[in-house]
Amino acid sequence: MSDLTHVYAYVDARREEFVDLLLRYLRQPSISTQDVGVEVCAELVLGMMRDCGLEARLLPTAGKPVVFGQRAVDPGRRTVLIYGHYDVQPVDPLEAWETPPFEPTIRNGRIYARGAGDNKGQHLAQLLAVRSYLATEGALPVNVKVILEGEEESSSPHLARFVEEHRELLAADLVYTSDGPVHESGRPQVVLGVRGILYVELRARGPKSDLHSGNRGGVVPNPAWRLVEVLASMRDAHGRATIEGFYDDVRPLTAAESAAIARLPLDLAKVFASYGVTRLPPPEGLGYYERLMAQPTLNICGFASGYSGEGMKTIIPATATAKLDMRLVPDQDPDDVFEKLTRHVRERAPDVAVARLGSMLPSRTPIENPYTQAVIAAVAEATGEEPLVVPSLGGSLPDYVFTRILGLPSVTVPYANPDESNHAPNENLEIERYLKGIKICATVLRNVGAPEPATAAARGAAVA
Amino acid sequence: MSDLTHVYAYVDARREEFVDLLLRYLRQPSISTQDVGVEVCAELVLGMMRDCGLEARLLPTAGKPVVFGQRAVDPGRRTVLIYGHYDVQPVDPLEAWETPPFEPTIRNGRIYARGAGDNKGQHLAQLLAVRSYLATEGALPVNVKVILEGEEESSSPHLARFVEEHRELLAADLVYTSDGPVHESGRPQVVLGVRGILYVELRARGPKSDLHSGNRGGVVPNPAWRLVEVLASMRDAHGRATIEGFYDDVRPLTAAESAAIARLPLDLAKVFASYGVTRLPPPEGLGYYERLMAQPTLNICGFASGYSGEGMKTIIPATATAKLDMRLVPDQDPDDVFEKLTRHVRERAPDVAVARLGSMLPSRTPIENPYTQAVIAAVAEATGEEPLVVPSLGGSLPDYVFTRILGLPSVTVPYANPDESNHAPNENLEIERYLKGIKICATVLRNVGAPEPATAAARGAAVA
Repeated sequence: MSDLTHVYAYVDARREEFVDLLLRYLRQPSISTQDVGVEVCAELVLGMMRDCGLEARLLPTAGKPVVFGQRAVDPGRRTVLIYGHYDVQPVDPLEAWETPPFEPTIRNGRIYARGAGDNKGQHLAQLLAVRSYLATEGALPVNVKVILEGEEESSSPHLARFVEEHRELLAADLVYTSDGPVHESGRPQVVLGVRGILYVELRARGPKSDLHSGNRGGVVPNPAWRLVEVLASMRDAHGRATIEGFYDDVRPLTAAESAAIARLPLDLAKVFASYGVTRLPPPEGLGYYERLMAQPTLNICGFASGYSGEGMKTIIPATATAKLDMRLVPDQDPDDVFEKLTRHVRERAPDVAVARLGSMLPSRTPIENPYTQAVIAAVAEATGEEPLVVPSLGGSLPDYVFTRILGLPSVTVPYANPDESNHAPNENLEIERYLKGIKICATVLRNVGAPEPATAAARGAAVA
Repeated sequence: MSDLTHVYAYVDARREEFVDLLLRYLRQPSISTQDVGVEVCAELVLGMMRDCGLEARLLPTAGKPVVFGQRAVDPGRRTVLIYGHYDVQPVDPLEAWETPPFEPTIRNGRIYARGAGDNKGQHLAQLLAVRSYLATEGALPVNVKVILEGEEESSSPHLARFVEEHRELLAADLVYTSDGPVHESGRPQVVLGVRGILYVELRARGPKSDLHSGNRGGVVPNPAWRLVEVLASMRDAHGRATIEGFYDDVRPLTAAESAAIARLPLDLAKVFASYGVTRLPPPEGLGYYERLMAQPTLNICGFASGYSGEGMKTIIPATATAKLDMRLVPDQDPDDVFEKLTRHVRERAPDVAVARLGSMLPSRTPIENPYTQAVIAAVAEATGEEPLVVPSLGGSLPDYVFTRILGLPSVTVPYANPDESNHAPNENLEIERYLKGIKICATVLRNVGAPEPATAAARGAAVA
């Protein structure tokens, strides 16, 4: 594989220009939830893509357009599909910003602006990696495709449909994303998946209106009791879900994943202090990261029935409602889990209604995948640090559109600093991390394009 | 016993005057929860008591004064203690009244005004019974004492203390009250007790603030689950409370009480339709009125945790709170039940806090008591109808201050029409029922004063 010294030097030499480009991008608001500036921003990044050497165009969706770019090198070569989003979070509370969110300002080596880390700085780094590679090496080692969506902060309502409708256009060997922060220790990390989610609402009905608990107490069914009892039937004494078949499709961690998890830093006392708790929840016998990454949850997000104000109100409530979310792990399927949960409720409390409010499939790209190893090695080479490998996030993102719809490995390498304040006032991105992101991406392209990605993995391991 | 023909005729002859007296009383607002006119009203009814032949005075409490009146006949004679309240409910929504609440108006044989039935018309009937008896017979057959409190609509916060501090002054053989409506069929009823109450709040704590259910799901205890599980542990599969000893002190119905309950009208289909339900709650095997009158409840008045708005919010809630009320029957004691419930929770979930928000003892005067029988007979004689006998109300009133603190039988005979709209706009009292109330009370006094109250009971039975 080629040495990337020239690419890295090119990036370092153009520091000021690359920062100016990001500042220009950040000056353009693009708040999708409030429909502020999104289309104008799409045009802006379309031009930036072209400036970086990609053939680019806007592809419509039922919502905001996807900005698509590609640089075809050779059909015989591998293809990397880069994902990012050009929309940003709202800015409120505006008064909490030290400098205006769309007037990017540099302080102490950081760029402060809405979207700096989430996600403009991170995907601009990918575009600049293409440009830097081309400028120094003359040609890319892989075919590159880029999709930047404009609705990520609105929960990507049209992404799955878009991917389904553009399977051929998006054909690739690896999906590569940069979003979120590096590990809180500052070490780089490579993220290989997310938990899915199934969100349901259970509703029990009692009398047609709240009734006096003295005058009617004992002769009218109480929906709160109904819901308490059906919920209680969903967990055993050890805190394990009793919904039949709930765990059937839980894929055990591989040896490599278990080893990666074991290497993740953990200070449980500090974790407890920060959450204000004193113990892990049931069931027992599971490690901290195993719980977060490899186990599903059955979580009560809300329970509302009757009176919740101060003091006493003596009623039999008319309704009781519980909201549950289940974080799902491979190979659980929200459709299947919903059916199992519905059957559980129907068999025990047929009068309790179950509504499905939302769902998303889980995803997990194998750590043993050669492209995963190629990315890990690239991060190690570009940063000089062995990255932490995170088999899964605890949360849920639409990564399944790549792993399940396109059937591709999907690897995320966050570039942002841990205190990037995404979704908060004074969002910022360290300039050094931005530049390092460009180098990481260039190295990923080189490694994926290498004749045998596993070779790159061996090289990466040597760095550790 | 003397024939009451003269008393009844006297009442009928003074219909207009007795109605005018009530109108005058109703013109005086006396809203205790809003502190409107209560003291002025106490002075007004004090004068009315005197006009009816009672020695009367105001007795202070830590709140509003009690208006006390008595007519001592002979220490060797029996004594009836009459209870009522001169305060009234607030009037809102004022716009829903057809005529102003404190400008009493007669329409279709009814007096419309706040307090008409609850409770001014009903206790004024008692005072006028004394007056009518004296005017026709020259002397009362019993000693009569009357206490009218000014805080009943504020939950009688000082009544128990008042009764404790005036045991000698209030010494009597029977407590007699008129409040609430006759049976919805229009038939008179005699009420012999109430259920008590214990109201508690359970609170479980999770993380110090709501946490993201993806990022933390599986590693942070969920307080809603904690509360669901401790609540579920309080009931068995048949809906019976599992709190150890909860039912220990439940006094079975006597044969007479069971017989009285069996005679109460019941149209279960109509009841279900009016509540919008299709079945009685668990446990099975209990009659409708037995549930309401002779069984305790363990009722969830409210359960609040996490998110209860529209759609999805993915959190692990910081807290979960449940409010429970238990309606208690003789001889359950709220102190004892609270201790048992607290022990149940402590043994299973020591981190769940239990707070006691309020309580009241149950009461039940035996149907077999000779004074009860005397009252039943009096109602039958004065109305020409065999009254329904209700061993207990489902709700809770401070009747225990008479049965437990004074150790007296306490009997309630409602005079108001079933559609009196107490606690609602357009409260009203049928004039015929008001006059009938005067006659009933006079007959009660005659019967209780009879050498052998059981004789009166025999006479009443003959009327049926």
